[in-house]
Amino acid sequence: MARYAAVIQYLGGGYSGWQIQKNRPTIQGELKKAIARVAGVDCHWHGAGRTDAGVHAKGQVAHLDLSGDRDPQRLLNALNGVLAPDIRLIALRRADDGFHARKDAVGKRYCYRIFNGAVLSPFERGRVLHVRRLLDLDRMAEAASLLRGTWNFGGFASASTSVKTMVRTLAQSRISRRGRQLTYVVEGNGFLQYMVRNIVGTLLEVGSGLRPPEDMLRILASRDRRNAGATARPDGLYLMKVFYRRSQE
Amino acid sequence: MARYAAVIQYLGGGYSGWQIQKNRPTIQGELKKAIARVAGVDCHWHGAGRTDAGVHAKGQVAHLDLSGDRDPQRLLNALNGVLAPDIRLIALRRADDGFHARKDAVGKRYCYRIFNGAVLSPFERGRVLHVRRLLDLDRMAEAASLLRGTWNFGGFASASTSVKTMVRTLAQSRISRRGRQLTYVVEGNGFLQYMVRNIVGTLLEVGSGLRPPEDMLRILASRDRRNAGATARPDGLYLMKVFYRRSQE
Repeated sequence: MARYAAVIQYLGGGYSGWQIQKNRPTIQGELKKAIARVAGVDCHWHGAGRTDAGVHAKGQVAHLDLSGDRDPQRLLNALNGVLAPDIRLIALRRADDGFHARKDAVGKRYCYRIFNGAVLSPFERGRVLHVRRLLDLDRMAEAASLLRGTWNFGGFASASTSVKTMVRTLAQSRISRRGRQLTYVVEGNGFLQYMVRNIVGTLLEVGSGLRPPEDMLRILASRDRRNAGATARPDGLYLMKVFYRRSQE
Repeated sequence: MARYAAVIQYLGGGYSGWQIQKNRPTIQGELKKAIARVAGVDCHWHGAGRTDAGVHAKGQVAHLDLSGDRDPQRLLNALNGVLAPDIRLIALRRADDGFHARKDAVGKRYCYRIFNGAVLSPFERGRVLHVRRLLDLDRMAEAASLLRGTWNFGGFASASTSVKTMVRTLAQSRISRRGRQLTYVVEGNGFLQYMVRNIVGTLLEVGSGLRPPEDMLRILASRDRRNAGATARPDGLYLMKVFYRRSQE
């Protein structure tokens, strides 16, 4: 058996997230079908992160094991030839036998795009969150920056999250504006379910003047999901990059 | 009656072009249906240019006449509320009674986007021409620049074009690269049918080494469509802006 690592991009709008499910289209499920068609094998794609339904990826990473000696470039072309065009392998290469896309990941970068204007361009439909009310960038930037560092993020996690620890470290948490486009960029060593979307939902309330920037710290301290804002829609969220100690890209 | 002018964006992929046709979805036809639903009137949208099937617009301009006194912002919101999300009115305002979207236009800017790499991102699908073979930007830039000025563009027009004169003036004709993305930008006082796509088709042959940049001048001199390259696909073409003597935007 030989291990391969892939970088994958997808438009999440048509899928029930990364993880394979019965009777629902998922990214992992489509990749499994593609390798079955191309190589005639039943094999599992181990993703670096489970993106939720509707979430996009520009840099998801996954690994899989295949028998025989295969040319990665030909395999990539064959897989892209049978995948729906809203999923694309951007790169595929041989990886060390010990490489694990999820366990070896030391960090991830997400971004969340918001269009803050009256009319959303048709070219941005399904790719940003559309917010018509004017948002106060300075307040949002202050709130976002408060999350940098190591915290228990239980207050921003899905209420049903069950993990050993909710402590995560964010190396970056900033929001910037370019015209009417706001982009929140967050990098961390790990993310809890709905964490980014719950942070963004809270930032939107800060930007609308409904709560002060310091609420971010109160939510962290409370560790209570009920104190954070509503979960922001998945349309604006992108898994941008997965970081490894030794670059796999 | 009062005249209104609109700036319109659309993804052309789902439509048989701007001009209304029986039994086919077109931009003009969808706008006509929208105004009928919103204002209960049968009225004509006069577009600045007839984009072909599959061509996109980021700055199409059109005018229409309506009875009564209507608030442009409310009318814009109402129309966007019933239009398919791949067509959007970006702006709508009262115009002088004498304003004519097509006749008053003194120029247009188009751009044509080419992705020159192995794997096309799913985010770019339907929005660029995908060319895998490596293109020589310098040759293409030289060829593109030769078209600036006033020429008879019969050699780059659709063979079936019947207009009084094929003489047009291009103020701008340049191609640039950003990463693997090439963008051809062309501005002129008017364009013949298929002219931009035939120019791009020829530039692609120049960039592939199949013909020298100077062929652009030979095609112009010949005024014979058969000497130009194949018509490039509509996916990469965008009507970016319509210019008026006094700005209507």
